[in-house]
Amino acid sequence: MTRRGPARERRDDLQEDRPTVPLLTPRVAQPVASPAPEVCLQLDEWRALRASPDWTGRTLGFVPTMGALHAGHVALLARARAENERVVLSIFVNPTQFEDPMDLDRYPRMLEADVARARPFVDAVLAPTAEALYPDDYRYRLTEYSHSLRQEGAHRPGHFEGVLTVVLKLLHLVQPRRAYFGEKDWQQLELVRGMVEALFLPVEIVGCPTVRDADGLALSSRNRRLSAAARAQAAMFPRLLRSADDAAEAAAQLRAAGFEVDYVDDCKGVRVGAVRLEGVRLIDNVRVKDACTLAPIR
Amino acid sequence: MTRRGPARERRDDLQEDRPTVPLLTPRVAQPVASPAPEVCLQLDEWRALRASPDWTGRTLGFVPTMGALHAGHVALLARARAENERVVLSIFVNPTQFEDPMDLDRYPRMLEADVARARPFVDAVLAPTAEALYPDDYRYRLTEYSHSLRQEGAHRPGHFEGVLTVVLKLLHLVQPRRAYFGEKDWQQLELVRGMVEALFLPVEIVGCPTVRDADGLALSSRNRRLSAAARAQAAMFPRLLRSADDAAEAAAQLRAAGFEVDYVDDCKGVRVGAVRLEGVRLIDNVRVKDACTLAPIR
Repeated sequence: MTRRGPARERRDDLQEDRPTVPLLTPRVAQPVASPAPEVCLQLDEWRALRASPDWTGRTLGFVPTMGALHAGHVALLARARAENERVVLSIFVNPTQFEDPMDLDRYPRMLEADVARARPFVDAVLAPTAEALYPDDYRYRLTEYSHSLRQEGAHRPGHFEGVLTVVLKLLHLVQPRRAYFGEKDWQQLELVRGMVEALFLPVEIVGCPTVRDADGLALSSRNRRLSAAARAQAAMFPRLLRSADDAAEAAAQLRAAGFEVDYVDDCKGVRVGAVRLEGVRLIDNVRVKDACTLAPIR
Repeated sequence: MTRRGPARERRDDLQEDRPTVPLLTPRVAQPVASPAPEVCLQLDEWRALRASPDWTGRTLGFVPTMGALHAGHVALLARARAENERVVLSIFVNPTQFEDPMDLDRYPRMLEADVARARPFVDAVLAPTAEALYPDDYRYRLTEYSHSLRQEGAHRPGHFEGVLTVVLKLLHLVQPRRAYFGEKDWQQLELVRGMVEALFLPVEIVGCPTVRDADGLALSSRNRRLSAAARAQAAMFPRLLRSADDAAEAAAQLRAAGFEVDYVDDCKGVRVGAVRLEGVRLIDNVRVKDACTLAPIR
């Protein structure tokens, strides 16, 4: 349970001898030979499983995703496995958080491969249809009226309304003790934490460190849409975010390096940014000030 | 448990020998000598009580109110008492559902009397402050974008957003098996049911029949603001709602009878309306068509 270092689960494209950051936190559980998870495509199947004697009264860790699992997701699953008696992964490409229908269409769907990848860590996979999750046709929405309008929210109108609404639905369906979110989507994590606090949801939100490729690029299902040249260039994104003296300088340097910059913004010691390369949108964030002292981090 | 007829709890202004409709449903429990309920003014007190061994694993019935309890509320409490092992009453005059600050100011506050009245039926009373229930300063809101814009919603912009948001918060805080709402606020009941279905909230919403004075006027804390003459006139409101052939005729007859009419509307076999007398706003609804056959009811 306390073994350090990279897990056996890895991205297929990583070389065995290639240096890499540890994919998992030290508190990770080792995956053991495990039965195939229950895959629930219907909400009723899931509800029956959740209410069964083997699930009630046990701590439940929940990892909501849009699928196309990479090592970042695996880190969330491994942490959930280590901290809970039961682990549920949801895979749902949520239409209401895509303001661009093309982006929604292009989002990869690969349920079988995802289930295989998640298998060592999860007891169930919930993969419902949009019709099942939106019986109300999206008439009921959870909206945040301040922070959600900035940064990502300013560039993706309605995005966080879709995110918060679907997370709220899933939390009610799953009723987990803990839910796991990656720090890569920093603003999303902050808004979900805020929602849980504002609405008194009985769940603990666990934020997990961003998992990066060896060159520093944060893992994302969108990275695979980059050409080799753009993929190489993309590594400059977190590097310039971190090295610049302030957000404006970071934006200027990113533009000079060939990125189209949606925004770079400093907020509570974290520098968040979104850029485009070859039309592929990348987001990332780095801590530039200590969370307690707010002294600069270099 | 099956005794029919009026309960011992009555409105103080009712005469003993005055004919009255049964205040309680047949499934009602008889109140027994009961200890004083726990009154939680702080959320932390409530959370500790909810997590205590005497409360976990028991069925919990929840009656959310704005206080100023009358026999309509008592009917909800009695039904909750009959159907659950523990009963919680919340008393919270929710500022976000008042679009008129004057109406909010005038809303009666009488916690001690309310607790005394509820005592035979409840195990706990949750009476938090607005600051405690809105740590987010109302940044997070639950909105419905169709039915909530009509009828009451058209006349009270933002009203249902405030109602749904506070009900959502309270349901998370209380985590009841069942929550009880009066049918008098018909549109509210429909919207709360819709929210529970859309968001997959793990609670059963129980709608309870409107309790009326002997002359037919639905009980409401606002009735006490009417002069004796207006109070007598007010009984025409449900009567004309019911007797008219359609919504337009009901509105015309109400205006002819001296009411200021906000709206009368027929929806799914129920006629809903809102009127004003002496500036006091009254709402009510009557079923005009059978719920199954949609044949007219007379």
